[in-house]
Amino acid sequence: MKTNNTANSAANSAAKTGHERTGVRRGRTRNDARHDKTKNEKIKIIPLGGLEQIGMNITCIEYEDNIIVIDCGLAFPTDDMLGIDLVIPDITYLKDNISKVKGFVITHGHEDHIGALPYVLKDVNVPVYATKLTMGIIEHKLKEHNMMKSTKRRVIRHGQSINLGCFRIEFIKTNHSIADATALAIYTPAGIIVHTGDFKIDYTPVFGDRIDLGRFAELGKKGVLALMCDSTNAERPGFTQSERTVGRQFDHIFNEHQKNRLIIATFASNVDRVQQIINTAYKFGRKVIVEGRSMVNIISIAQELGYINIPDKTLIELDQMKNYPPEQIVLITTGSQGETMAALSRMAASVHRKVSIVPGDTVVFSSNPIPGNEKAVSNVINELYMKGAEVIYQDTHVSGHACQEDIKLIYALTQPKFAIPVHGEFRHLKAHAELAQMMGVEKDHIIVMESGDVLELSSDSAKITGKVHCGDVMVDGLGVGDVGNIVLRDRQLLSQNGLLIVVITLEKYTNQILAGPDIVSRGFVYVRESETLMEDARHVVSQALENCLSHRCSDWGKIKNVVREALGDYVWKQTKRSPMILPIIMEVE
Amino acid sequence: MKTNNTANSAANSAAKTGHERTGVRRGRTRNDARHDKTKNEKIKIIPLGGLEQIGMNITCIEYEDNIIVIDCGLAFPTDDMLGIDLVIPDITYLKDNISKVKGFVITHGHEDHIGALPYVLKDVNVPVYATKLTMGIIEHKLKEHNMMKSTKRRVIRHGQSINLGCFRIEFIKTNHSIADATALAIYTPAGIIVHTGDFKIDYTPVFGDRIDLGRFAELGKKGVLALMCDSTNAERPGFTQSERTVGRQFDHIFNEHQKNRLIIATFASNVDRVQQIINTAYKFGRKVIVEGRSMVNIISIAQELGYINIPDKTLIELDQMKNYPPEQIVLITTGSQGETMAALSRMAASVHRKVSIVPGDTVVFSSNPIPGNEKAVSNVINELYMKGAEVIYQDTHVSGHACQEDIKLIYALTQPKFAIPVHGEFRHLKAHAELAQMMGVEKDHIIVMESGDVLELSSDSAKITGKVHCGDVMVDGLGVGDVGNIVLRDRQLLSQNGLLIVVITLEKYTNQILAGPDIVSRGFVYVRESETLMEDARHVVSQALENCLSHRCSDWGKIKNVVREALGDYVWKQTKRSPMILPIIMEVE
Repeated sequence: MKTNNTANSAANSAAKTGHERTGVRRGRTRNDARHDKTKNEKIKIIPLGGLEQIGMNITCIEYEDNIIVIDCGLAFPTDDMLGIDLVIPDITYLKDNISKVKGFVITHGHEDHIGALPYVLKDVNVPVYATKLTMGIIEHKLKEHNMMKSTKRRVIRHGQSINLGCFRIEFIKTNHSIADATALAIYTPAGIIVHTGDFKIDYTPVFGDRIDLGRFAELGKKGVLALMCDSTNAERPGFTQSERTVGRQFDHIFNEHQKNRLIIATFASNVDRVQQIINTAYKFGRKVIVEGRSMVNIISIAQELGYINIPDKTLIELDQMKNYPPEQIVLITTGSQGETMAALSRMAASVHRKVSIVPGDTVVFSSNPIPGNEKAVSNVINELYMKGAEVIYQDTHVSGHACQEDIKLIYALTQPKFAIPVHGEFRHLKAHAELAQMMGVEKDHIIVMESGDVLELSSDSAKITGKVHCGDVMVDGLGVGDVGNIVLRDRQLLSQNGLLIVVITLEKYTNQILAGPDIVSRGFVYVRESETLMEDARHVVSQALENCLSHRCSDWGKIKNVVREALGDYVWKQTKRSPMILPIIMEVE
Repeated sequence: MKTNNTANSAANSAAKTGHERTGVRRGRTRNDARHDKTKNEKIKIIPLGGLEQIGMNITCIEYEDNIIVIDCGLAFPTDDMLGIDLVIPDITYLKDNISKVKGFVITHGHEDHIGALPYVLKDVNVPVYATKLTMGIIEHKLKEHNMMKSTKRRVIRHGQSINLGCFRIEFIKTNHSIADATALAIYTPAGIIVHTGDFKIDYTPVFGDRIDLGRFAELGKKGVLALMCDSTNAERPGFTQSERTVGRQFDHIFNEHQKNRLIIATFASNVDRVQQIINTAYKFGRKVIVEGRSMVNIISIAQELGYINIPDKTLIELDQMKNYPPEQIVLITTGSQGETMAALSRMAASVHRKVSIVPGDTVVFSSNPIPGNEKAVSNVINELYMKGAEVIYQDTHVSGHACQEDIKLIYALTQPKFAIPVHGEFRHLKAHAELAQMMGVEKDHIIVMESGDVLELSSDSAKITGKVHCGDVMVDGLGVGDVGNIVLRDRQLLSQNGLLIVVITLEKYTNQILAGPDIVSRGFVYVRESETLMEDARHVVSQALENCLSHRCSDWGKIKNVVREALGDYVWKQTKRSPMILPIIMEVE
């Protein structure tokens, strides 16, 4: 299947001739010269996140004194990260090599690809390169963090190339669930690396061009050394449907529900989805309201930059809703994932300030639950039904990621020598690896990496040769990285069993008990209904303490242990629970 | 579609003639006489749980001084019930009417139908009626709670009827994901109520007979007043496949993986599934090991009662595994839902004492994730892949619940006058209601109930006339109901932000500070790395206290408020977090 085995020389020629369609930056660059010298240059690929997980995408491509970084995303906290707001990558490696870092190249504007930028740029202040809409969304973030002045930014068009250090990076048009997504062809001294970013193949996109399959084919003919391709849907057979199919479904729903108010929940960043709802609303003579902070933000950025086309007088403010009958309204809202604080969840729970769900409303989930959110979404659906709404949640969404046959097409076009599955949990990477093999990539040329792995790649070899420091940095409020495992373990313990605090005041020299022991409980039992238990517990602690002190024990550590053991044993016997026990000793002279 | 409108008289004749096939308890019973007197008897149906939720099924059928209770299940804690082990129904209504309660009639042996029995029987000690395997599983529970002697039990065969007070209850064979499930025909003074229990229609069950569709049809011809039918799969189109289809899939998997050790995870209670694995293992000459406490328990009960047929020398102990090559082993295990403590999860996480996952292992999930468990299951799948196992998780499970076309068949056979969808979240009940309407039940004869509703049902009317007390009782360790909303709210708060404890010792009469303020933190920040913050916080509290005390404030409530506000404000400004703040004042004379 795969016939190309001269990836490196082909890459050289690609680097030399440039990209015909763009006309940008022809001519020889520094790295071209270097290419000619040797065919055994080694580059390094080092993902600092994004592998074995969905989220926190950030990957370094390194050659000698040159590092470029692809994406800089955040992850949402896992269930065991209690109280954490978001997670960003540990970028110790970038800080340690700060003089080499040439810039961030961003593939699209989703949080898992841009969300960590405001945090990371504080430590690694290098230029950011992205397409127009992506940059618009990044700039919104930078403004919030008051970092616009300090951050160098450059907007790149599809087809255009930039030089960063020894690398040339070409932006290639793709489709995704957010407009202006890009794949990257990275011309390195070892050969061409194609990074798809998150993508789908949409032959009939709602906005802009379809994915530039021709360019993938051209690169394949020139010779692609390695393909780093989206794995999200690598387990799903078939092709991903066009975004436009959802539009036809909207037409159908609007037609069937001409007497109902329509409320449609979708992802805030899916501008094309919102465009289609607006198109259908316009066709059916409805006014459109956009509700939910993140969606309002993105739509206003998209409108400003020309990525959405809203007919005059179609969009109205929420406060104007009362001036129209329900059947002339469509409300587009956040909350399609059942997020507690999002607009739709607040409507469903009757705590939204301005919108109440009433019988006759039709609520459409234009989304699928992201794994882990199924229960939350189902709860919102139940609440909506209980309020008398009709709920539609099937055939109203298409994925933004390529399915198996689409992925195969990219392999068929690019014919890479090496395959490096990216963007996915291990199961997705593994499924992707099987596809790559099926498409003719040699088994030992398929490299399933972990975050932190250092992959050394030359024109004819790929080998994981080391590991760099990487990991999760948890953000909680203003604190970046100040919540660690000890704090999380305490939160976990407190959440399961609550705590018992034992306070004692001792006289400094005699160690005589001046006050206490008092026991205070939180999250353990409701004290008013468990007075006997608490009184007995106090008695148990008193006895243990007296016994300990009468033996002239004056070591606070020992005293605390005695309290912990006596109280812990007693409480376990009585309740089979293990609350955290916290003895506090005060001393009075 | 529905032609029968003499449900009541038909019910009478059914009650009089009995059920030909069983031959048990013919002859007239007390209620028959009462039937003849009036056609306007009203019975009450009162679900105390199980509606608008999956789990905690318990429903009262009441007539004058007679109450029977169908099922007595538990629910698993929702995400916001931190630290809770399980949830049982509030049975205040039964306790208040204890003299009326004639017994518990149990439809099958799943936790959500029997799990609360040991708790509820302590307060409402009445006889329990169930089929053989169901009773075997109940008895296992009663033994654990040392309640065998105190509990009256009677095993009922399918086709047999029992009289409880004025009610006659006939057990009708059904199929489900656990053997020996039963539907109930309840002959009441108002007419016949058919309760399906959880069921599927399996024309080719692995063990025992297929569902007694003929009896449903006979009842339909006699006249069914109300159908209380399983709603779990009411949103799913089509028919539920036979359990036997999974067996064919096992044959295929065993055939394709003749060189691999096989590990198959499934639900502990699905005896027929285990039977099929054993059948295939025997065919392929493999030894079978059962691992995981709950599965070992149920299989031994099933074996003892003749519900599973294990060929000699097929089953071996886990310790014997080392005596056989991997390709001669199949390990059947718990953990198909990704439960942290279950056997498979421990194997995947390399913390199982006796089984390690190695490359070459093939792990089969013979299950679908129950909503809410998707992420946990996915995590285990990832871990298994990382250890080099192959993982199979598609086409290896069928549901135990009837899909839309099956539900329609039951409506077609029973032709009920009233439809009362049971067993499901609101969305399922709602979908079921639509099916009932489609099947010809009049719209106002379809009653979607909430737990606690009192439905008064006569031969020609159904009306929700009241509400009884019901709800969740949380079990935490030995505590039943001692964890309430205040404790949960504290656990929630502690889990998100941790806490700060401020301790002060005051002199009793002067209110002079003798010791403190000391601040102790748990789950907030790691103190060693936040010394400045904590030191400044102490300073802030000191100043606020001194200010307060110098104004002769001696009210402890006020002092505590001053501490809470000062510290809360300071910490919020510094960290944008809101830990619980717990001021504790001690007093020394």
